[in-house]
Amino acid sequence: MYELVIIGGGPCGLTAGIYAQRSRLKTLLIEKLGIGGQIATSDLIENYPGFKGISGMGLMKEFEAQAAELALEIKYTEALSIKDRGQYKEIMTPDGSIQAGAVIIATGAKPKRLGVPGEAELIGRGISFCATCDGFFFRDREVAVIGGGDSALKEAIYLSRIVKKVHLIHRRDKFRAEKMLIEKALAEPKFEFHLNKVVKSVKGGVLGIEALELEDTRTHDTSDLPVEGAFIYIGVNPNTGSFDVEKDEFGFIKADKVLMTSMMGVFAAGDCRVTPLRQVATAVGDGALAASEVERYIESCR
Amino acid sequence: MYELVIIGGGPCGLTAGIYAQRSRLKTLLIEKLGIGGQIATSDLIENYPGFKGISGMGLMKEFEAQAAELALEIKYTEALSIKDRGQYKEIMTPDGSIQAGAVIIATGAKPKRLGVPGEAELIGRGISFCATCDGFFFRDREVAVIGGGDSALKEAIYLSRIVKKVHLIHRRDKFRAEKMLIEKALAEPKFEFHLNKVVKSVKGGVLGIEALELEDTRTHDTSDLPVEGAFIYIGVNPNTGSFDVEKDEFGFIKADKVLMTSMMGVFAAGDCRVTPLRQVATAVGDGALAASEVERYIESCR
Repeated sequence: MYELVIIGGGPCGLTAGIYAQRSRLKTLLIEKLGIGGQIATSDLIENYPGFKGISGMGLMKEFEAQAAELALEIKYTEALSIKDRGQYKEIMTPDGSIQAGAVIIATGAKPKRLGVPGEAELIGRGISFCATCDGFFFRDREVAVIGGGDSALKEAIYLSRIVKKVHLIHRRDKFRAEKMLIEKALAEPKFEFHLNKVVKSVKGGVLGIEALELEDTRTHDTSDLPVEGAFIYIGVNPNTGSFDVEKDEFGFIKADKVLMTSMMGVFAAGDCRVTPLRQVATAVGDGALAASEVERYIESCR
Repeated sequence: MYELVIIGGGPCGLTAGIYAQRSRLKTLLIEKLGIGGQIATSDLIENYPGFKGISGMGLMKEFEAQAAELALEIKYTEALSIKDRGQYKEIMTPDGSIQAGAVIIATGAKPKRLGVPGEAELIGRGISFCATCDGFFFRDREVAVIGGGDSALKEAIYLSRIVKKVHLIHRRDKFRAEKMLIEKALAEPKFEFHLNKVVKSVKGGVLGIEALELEDTRTHDTSDLPVEGAFIYIGVNPNTGSFDVEKDEFGFIKADKVLMTSMMGVFAAGDCRVTPLRQVATAVGDGALAASEVERYIESCR
């Protein structure tokens, strides 16, 4: 039986792990895929204090090394559900159940899909959610980036170094990103802007994408934009489906001031919870707080 | 006129500065003393994710360099008060007043004093709040560390490398620090523990401290402990005296979920606000959130 099980190995979960190990809580971190979470797919992070510029993967390797030095135990499996057994929580996984005094859900979020015809079928054949993973396949081709926030612009800028042309498709008439990113984007000769446009469908076949069908949000005119790749950055959905705790309408977990959820002893931290900002900086703050509150909770149960 | 004035140049203020500069907010950071804040006096930080072990000053130099690369404007002066002028805020300083669309108070906290006879008179002559600043003056002497939390133990461990003996004085029967620190402390041969003891007075003269008068919290017996230095780590008080915003009974500023205070457009972030944990990790999360909310606020005022 563990004192703490942390679900998720992104920046938040790793920070909670570092704090928990320093508090000598008997801790297990569960990760479904690979250490680092969503941010590990990011090409360049310039706004995590302490690092002027580092890849998401590079930063996560630093976090992981710090956790490893503290001998944080990590198990690669999936948390299917959490059951409240009174004295302890039981975490169900495909590899059996795990008991813990307290749980931190730090499962983060995943890219939102467009939800239009053709998208699901063409994922991996032109539709991508990760420019750093898949950008290289489109060198000297024309691609589209869909979205208007920080991620859309950052990844479009990254792609501009690889591809021939980037079509930026955004449903509004201006971007909602950091001003520095907007300035960079506006100065980039490889960008073509398609504002007030939404994607109605993705056209293509077994060989990949052929075009995106765009609709103008004002005139409702439609037109086809021929591209070979489309990178979608329109926000995130939380990875919280399997947990039976109180959530908002979008599935983000509701947590109180000390990050406890509606299930006593189960905490939610980082991108998966209802929070006004989702950054490495805020994930790290959440991870530290959640682990510190778990320690307090475990002490109070003794 | 600035869009944003950040008061305080510790980890929280610098993070807010980094985010604000990336958002191209016209920003000024005001610092009273020196960049880095309270953490810059810390000998070793091992729990800020990304750095396995770095001095407080070293970490703050990284933050400062990152802010400098973004050309954050810094002015060395003191914020005496903030006045709400409707369309803008006015920050009074000894060097004149500064106008800003929004303000982030990130003034942090300072060490709490014991408040016993002799303490005030002997500050700088044996009484210290900073082991890394003053530890060297006591090499091969006997000193006391007062307190039972992370800071007390960390700094006592630091002092043990310099001094002959460290007397750890704590009013409770156990420490409230990270288990890793407690284990280290218990294994340290240079430590002598004085549990259930409080300092009643500091005895000494022009040449410095001679002894601490201790009282046992259970028996109320008093005794003198001869030491030449005493390092006080019993918690913090917020640096918020000059700001006319809503605070709790200890002076910590009350802020809502997006860190706005009772004065519209004035935000509080980091150690100076009511918050369950005060760490570099949480200060950084607060700084990022505050700057992002200021941007939203400034946009909404346009």
